[in-house]
Formats: sequence, structure tokens, C-alpha cells
Amino acid sequence: MAPPAALEVEAVTDTTGVTIPDPLKAPVPKSNDIRGRRKKADKAQWGVAAPSDSANFRQGNYDDKPLARRWDHYISDEAHTRKGNNLKKAAGFLGKPGIISLGGGLPSSEYFPFEELSIKVPAVGKFSEQETKESGVILTAGKHDLAEDKAIFDIATAFNYGQGTGAAQLLRWITEHTEMVHNPPYQDWRCTMSIGSTSGLDMALRMLSRPGDMMLSEDYTFAAAVECALPLGVRMCGVPMDSEGILPDAMDEILTNWDVADRGARKPHLMYTVPTGQNPTGATASGARRRAIYKVAQKHDIYIIEDEPYYFLQMQPYTGSDGPNPPPPASHADFIKALVPSYLSLDTDGRVMRLDSFSKVLAPGSRIGWVTASAQIIKKYQQHADLSTQGPSGFSQLALWKLVDEHWGHGGYLDWLIHIRLEYTTRRNIILGACEKYLPKSIVRWNPPSAGMFHWLDIYAYKQHPLWDEKRKNVEEIEERIFMKIIDEGALLMRGSWFYADPSQKHDTLFFRATYAAAPGEKIEEGVRRLGEALRREFGVKE
Amino acid sequence: MAPPAALEVEAVTDTTGVTIPDPLKAPVPKSNDIRGRRKKADKAQWGVAAPSDSANFRQGNYDDKPLARRWDHYISDEAHTRKGNNLKKAAGFLGKPGIISLGGGLPSSEYFPFEELSIKVPAVGKFSEQETKESGVILTAGKHDLAEDKAIFDIATAFNYGQGTGAAQLLRWITEHTEMVHNPPYQDWRCTMSIGSTSGLDMALRMLSRPGDMMLSEDYTFAAAVECALPLGVRMCGVPMDSEGILPDAMDEILTNWDVADRGARKPHLMYTVPTGQNPTGATASGARRRAIYKVAQKHDIYIIEDEPYYFLQMQPYTGSDGPNPPPPASHADFIKALVPSYLSLDTDGRVMRLDSFSKVLAPGSRIGWVTASAQIIKKYQQHADLSTQGPSGFSQLALWKLVDEHWGHGGYLDWLIHIRLEYTTRRNIILGACEKYLPKSIVRWNPPSAGMFHWLDIYAYKQHPLWDEKRKNVEEIEERIFMKIIDEGALLMRGSWFYADPSQKHDTLFFRATYAAAPGEKIEEGVRRLGEALRREFGVKE
Repeated sequence: MAPPAALEVEAVTDTTGVTIPDPLKAPVPKSNDIRGRRKKADKAQWGVAAPSDSANFRQGNYDDKPLARRWDHYISDEAHTRKGNNLKKAAGFLGKPGIISLGGGLPSSEYFPFEELSIKVPAVGKFSEQETKESGVILTAGKHDLAEDKAIFDIATAFNYGQGTGAAQLLRWITEHTEMVHNPPYQDWRCTMSIGSTSGLDMALRMLSRPGDMMLSEDYTFAAAVECALPLGVRMCGVPMDSEGILPDAMDEILTNWDVADRGARKPHLMYTVPTGQNPTGATASGARRRAIYKVAQKHDIYIIEDEPYYFLQMQPYTGSDGPNPPPPASHADFIKALVPSYLSLDTDGRVMRLDSFSKVLAPGSRIGWVTASAQIIKKYQQHADLSTQGPSGFSQLALWKLVDEHWGHGGYLDWLIHIRLEYTTRRNIILGACEKYLPKSIVRWNPPSAGMFHWLDIYAYKQHPLWDEKRKNVEEIEERIFMKIIDEGALLMRGSWFYADPSQKHDTLFFRATYAAAPGEKIEEGVRRLGEALRREFGVKE
Repeated sequence: MAPPAALEVEAVTDTTGVTIPDPLKAPVPKSNDIRGRRKKADKAQWGVAAPSDSANFRQGNYDDKPLARRWDHYISDEAHTRKGNNLKKAAGFLGKPGIISLGGGLPSSEYFPFEELSIKVPAVGKFSEQETKESGVILTAGKHDLAEDKAIFDIATAFNYGQGTGAAQLLRWITEHTEMVHNPPYQDWRCTMSIGSTSGLDMALRMLSRPGDMMLSEDYTFAAAVECALPLGVRMCGVPMDSEGILPDAMDEILTNWDVADRGARKPHLMYTVPTGQNPTGATASGARRRAIYKVAQKHDIYIIEDEPYYFLQMQPYTGSDGPNPPPPASHADFIKALVPSYLSLDTDGRVMRLDSFSKVLAPGSRIGWVTASAQIIKKYQQHADLSTQGPSGFSQLALWKLVDEHWGHGGYLDWLIHIRLEYTTRRNIILGACEKYLPKSIVRWNPPSAGMFHWLDIYAYKQHPLWDEKRKNVEEIEERIFMKIIDEGALLMRGSWFYADPSQKHDTLFFRATYAAAPGEKIEEGVRRLGEALRREFGVKE
């Protein structure tokens, strides 16, 4: 186990007023830099199924900031009806000294057949697989570490029932991280864990929509979001977009001219957006774009669901296939400053529910994400979680807490994110280099993605396809032909039409989505070469 | 790591026709006794996010058994609308030899900062905490064990995205276990993992009910089930019960005389039941009772949701506070034969959705359970899981698979369950002994629970309470007085009224729920002594 970290704090203040500890400026990273400033918590806070409130884990003073607006007018009957758990009222009496509980039906940890849980993980700064193999650190959680005062989180606690919020131990870290990166500009923001953002969206829609609703989104959007919404009777209304995502003027126009009879739905009050490295288009909205969209949201009282799995997959600027490599962030503060501001960081009204996830930066299999929103919304979310998903797996929570809190600390985690940033930059550059080398530019064009996993290929010359039929405007037929030809050549890409926000709407664009996240570099290159062959054959171009 | 288990199979056939491997008859338990009979699976079956079908993991021949009925007439609009995932169609092309996928947005395991996951667990037969500490076995999963042919499940696979079914590796074990214990008597039964039975019920109701419905249940029922149903517009209709749970005649009468106008709901088509060690009453239905209920369900076409977290907490027969200890099961076959038959095992129609859970027998924090039902229902469940909960945590799945499949095997797991059975028997006997010793029998009576965690105390003489008001029939007021007095005396029990299936219905019974699951023996005894004091003072009896 790593030795306890020093408690000194070295901090810098960035331009947005957030105080960010900056271990990178010190010769050796102080991985647990925030610890010295943490409020003392009673040991009971770390006990089995102990309730916790993320408000207690915030370090800033929010008294002078505005309270979030109330969203009662958008909250569904289902969520209105859902109240707290009867049995949890009884827990209030457990504080009485010496009381013996024959109440709660929690099994005794005596019957958990687990004595230790260990993970072998990278030391800070030695992040590659090879380095981890050679110099990785083994972190071990014992069964009764809490009772034995060895650690504040253990098997007896993590492996028992918990609260819908997740355990206080990890919730504290998540809240601190959120404050450090986003510093939400209103008083009553809160965090709670989710079991992943797919579930987060499902729960958000059950809380904030009703059957028949339409919800704004990018014109091409995350297919699972459309498929999640449809069974709830909620259709997406795709807003025209460019390489920064949703166009604010187009959004305003749609809302201003909304015709209930024509649309068959009341005017939208929800927007679902993936503003960074969007799936499938790779679009990333700048700060200016986000501020413009936020203004339109205020004008029409739109509640924003900000789904941000790729937020930390923002890459180094692209300087061309043989341009110079821009230097990586020199400090944690520089790294955070270089990130595009989130909607949450602009959210003076508390009209944003932000969905964060560990899936793209640690491991999807952890099934841990978190939600940040106003206290009203988070309370409703927790009440639902208590009666459905419950909190995330205790196995996952304990392992992640050992890694990001006890071992890496906030500084080490930011170092890991910087590592990932550089890795994805390399991958992105490989696919862009291959596209420049192998693709026929008379048929296909693209923008270099600045974040995420996806490269969006615009088959802008699709009307030159031999089977194009100007009368029938058979875009999807052509798309299918090209898709099959790419497979013939030995590569697999995703069809753009699979990402239509509204499949009933006619589209006059034809795209394919490629990812550079999964395959090794030489496979990416070969895959793009095959794609180029397929396009040449299909369109009969020699270029 | 444990050495690979021998492949010999020693099996016995029990009266229900299930073939059960019987390692207990051999001098040394063969913990992986079923392995020799497993079908060979292609290595691709164990890969990242590989789809799997529990049908392939069944060992029996079901060709001669009837197909399950179709439930289209009960399936909700939501579930009808939900179709498979578009992007998963693309996975069909991945079989093409040499194809390079630039399609799926799965992160590369290179960026999972986990090199190993280890758990220290009991060796078979050395199950106590002390023994585990001293002689526990450390099981380790490496990052690339699958690629390196060291094991069929590893970090690279388990920690990536998966299917809503959960991973094939653990699903196989779960399916085999279900077949061994329940042997469902129809052709197309299937299993899929849940993230716990609370979520299982939530998803079942969204699939099978619509707002305004009423659903049958025990008159006193699991509070979270009522609270889960209400926001969906589904109310419970409590059926009169005895110490075996729901009374079949009462159920038949309610359904036969259902008055839509009077009830404000269509005739129920769902029953929610916890037939073994019911929460809160501790009631366990015998085989005969279950057969009678199943018949009524057939008569009125009721679909049964069988929630069975306590199924394996069936205890040794109670023989009085100084009666002889009945001998524990002599073999695995004896153990399984001694279990009360599940609804699933009687389900010739495929009208049962059974919810199983590891929470009470391994650890609640795993957030892994499973659902068994007909292929139609399981398919709908999986489609929903794919778009909301997803499968359980990969950290949990990998740890549990290491334990129950690779290390213990089915035999070792049954040994563990027998161990738990004896432990709970001891705990149950302690609380019963204490009740006999300390409680005033002129006020309170009880039945010895035969399963589960709960002891249900009937304050049958509540009308002798000094504040009883025959005109107002103030049962809940008296209950609250007693509740507070018990707390004054230093113990906490749960109020019976918190478990009303239908809180709007008037009740003329007064109960408290005690659990013997959590506190150590001497605390249980002292807690019951305090309860006795409270009752004596409250009722002014000297006994």
C-alpha cells in the first residue's frame, strides 16, 4: 500500500476563480493534495449504508451565489409521486447511544466470503501497460479496515447494502473533482453517483418528460439516447449542426416557431446534448458556442441534459500531418484551463444536469458515473435510485476509491487524464494522417476532431454515385451500398443514418463514423486504406 | 490460484428428475464437478461484449417440454416499442475473417489502469471469517488472461463494455445453477443477469403493467416493492395471509369478485410474491401451498413475479428451545431436496418471472442478481437493460466468477449455502430462545420462521393497551406508542404498518418485525429483553 500522502497544499488560482492544487509544479507530485483541506468527518459517515450529502464535501463558499431555479413544472407525475423510503426513517433513531437494532435487514458481513480485495495499478507518472506490469502498485482493502482504523473504506462496508447516492467515501472525491474542474456558479449544486450515463439518461427522462414530448438534440446523435427515449414516448427533434454541434440560431428558430399541431407535441423543454467529442460527429462546442446555446435555453426555458463521457478526451491542437507537436499542459491548472468550459460551469440558473462517467477514462466495466445538478433534481434522482438501480457496485466503488482517492489523489488522477489526452492525440493523428494519405478527396471530406473517439466522414459527393436517383433522393440506399462495399474490402464503419435524431425526417447528407479508440495504429491505417479502396471502386474514381 | 479441478463427474438423480452432481459423497469435494459436461464453446464466446444466450448453457434436453405461453397481451407499450439496438446489427459483420473494425466505440483496454484484480476467499469447507483469514485462497485475474490462454475471463474483457445479459462466463454458471436447483418444466426458459432484484422489479413492472393497475401481493409486503410500484401508478392489492403467506381461497375470491368500478382498476394480471422467508412476515409457503396458488394463477391468468432473495436461507427444522439439533443435509442432493419447491420449478406455463440475488448469500454490494423467465420476457428484459442499467459491474462479475466458477464450482457453492443455512439456524434459534425467555406471552405471539432473516411478532392483545379506543380503532397510534417505548428501552424494531401492501386499507392487526441477521447473538438476546421490558411497561403487565 502507498504511504500516506503529505498534507501540504500548494495551490494556484486560475482565471475563473477556482483554486486548484498544483502538484505538477512541485518536483514530486503530491498525489493527495486536497486532503489537508478536507473537513473532518465523523467516523459514522463512513459506516454501512450511511447517508451522505455531497454539500458537505464541497470546499468552496457558495453563500453569495444564486439558488437554482425550481423545476416543479417539468417534473413528471412518476417523480412527483416518489417519496422517501419509509424504513429509512427508522435509521434516524440509530444515533441513540447504546441502541440495539433488530430493525434493518442488512446481512452481517460475517457471511461475505471475501477477506481482501486487491488491485494492481499504475504508480503516478508510470501509466503505460508495460510500466504498470513492472512497477505497478498493489492496493489492498481488508474486510474490517474501518473498524480496525486502517482505512475509511473496506469490504464490510462497500460489499453491504448502500445508499442510492453511492458511498460517502467515493462521493466525496467525486464532489471535490467536480468542484475543481467545473466550479458550478450557483449555490445548491449537488452530486450523486449513477450506475453509468445510459441509466442516467433513462432516469432523467422518467423524471423530466412525459409521453408525447419532443426533446432537442444534435441532428445526428447518440443512437442509444434515441432508443432510450422512444419507448418512453419521447421523440428527438434534431437541430441543424456544424463542426461545433448545435447551431444556436437554428435552435432559437425551431423553438420560436414551434407549432404544436404540426409537430404533434408541446414545445420542447428538454435538450439532450453531447457537447464535447460528440457521438457520432466528433463535434466539440467552443466556450462561445456554449454560451450562445445557454442563452437560447434561458430564453425558452430549456432544461439541458449535458452528457459528457468524452470531456477528458480533449486532445492537443491538430497542426497538420507533419506539423509540430504542441507542448502538453505544463501543470494541472494549465490542463484544466485548456479544457473547453462545460455547461455546468456556465450554469447560473441550475438548468443543467451533467452526466459524467468513468467509462472512457478508467473502465466502462466499473459501471460508475455521476450526476451533477441542483439539489431538487439530485434528490429526485436519489429517490429513484433507492428504489431501482441502487448505488453502483461496492466492488467497483471500493476499487475506484482505492485508486483515485487513497493512491493517486486528485493530482495523480489529473496526471492520468493528461496521459490519456496524449494517447488519444496520437491515435487521432494516426487516423487523420491515414485519411489524408488514402481517401479520395473528391468524394469525402472531414474536420479534425478535437475531442472524443470519433472521426466523422462526410461523403459530400454522394450524388456522383452511379446509382444516385435525383427524383427519389435515395441517400440511404447509396449509404447501404457503400457500407457493404467497405465490408467487402475488409473494414467496418458505422452508417451515419443509424444516428439520425429523428429517423422520420428526410436527410440530404451522407456520413460514416470511424473510431480511432480501439484498434492499434497499424490496423487503423490499414482500415482507412481499405475504406479508400471501397470509395474509389464504388464511385469509380481513380484519384 | 487453485489448481484446475478434476473433470470426473459423480452424479445422483433426485426424485424430480434433475441430475445433481454430488461431490459431498466423495471423500474430497470436487468443486468443479459440472465442468466435464459443459459444451465446448468457441473462444469468441468469451470476448469483449460478446452476445450470449443462456439456452446454450443448459445441460438438459427440453425438446419434449411445452413452450411457454405468450404474454403479448400484458406487455406494456413501452416494452412493445423497445427494439434491438441499431449499432449491434453491425456486430454481425465482425465474423468476417480479417475484418478491421473502425466501428464500435469501445475504449482500448490499454487505457484501463488495472493490471490485476485479486480476492482472498474461503477454501471449500473452511468458511468462517477466522478460517478464511488463516487459510483463505487468493484468486487473481490478470489483464489479458484470455488472450494469453490463462483463463476465459479477465480484466480486458470484464472491465470493458458488456451486454445487458451480463458476461457469458458468469451467465453460464448462473444458468447451470438455476437448472440444477429449479429444473424449469417448460422448453424455452432463459436467464439474464440483473443489477439486483430491486431493479429487476422496477423493470418487470415497466414491462408488464400500466398506470392504474393493481397487483396482488401478500397483505404485508416488502415496503420497497410498494414504493417502487406506486410512482408507476400501480397499487398493491393485499391478499389475506397466514404463516405460509397468501391464502389461495382468498386470492381466488378477490379475483372472482373483482369489481372494476369499485376498485378503480382493471382485474389484476400480476402477482408479486416473496414465497420464502417473506419480508416482513417470515412466512414460507409449502410446496402444497404453492401448487394451490399456481392453480389460482392459472384460473385467472395471473403472471407471477417470484422475488426470492431468501430462498437459500431456509433453515433446519425448529425443534424447540431445548429440542435436538436435526442433522444437516448429508449431500448436495439432500440439501436441494430439502428446499421448498420454487414457483419456477412448478411453472409449466412459463408464467413466472423469478428474481434471484446474490445479496443475501454472497454480498449485497456485488449488485448482481438474475432473472429467469420465458424467452419472450427475457428478451424484453435484456432490451431494456441494454438501454438503461446495462449488465452488472464487470468488477463484480469477474470477482464472483473467480469465486463461484473457477474456485468453488457448483459443489463448493452448495457447501457454502449449507454453511449459511446452519449459521442462520443458530441465529434464528437464539432469537426464538430469547423471545420465549423475555416476552410477555399474554401480549405477543409468533411462529418460528423457517427461512429468511425476519421474525414477525404479533401483538395480538393490542386492544388491552390503556390507550386503545374501540370507537376509533386506533391501531397505528398504539403501534407508534409501542415503537417509541421500545426505542426508550434501547432497541429498534420495524413497525408492521410500514409494510402494508395497501396503506389506504384499514388493518386490525398489529405487528413488529425483528431481524436476527445482523446483530451478534448476545445483542439479539439483549435487544429482545429490552423489547420485553417495553411491552410490559406499555401494557402494564407483570408477567
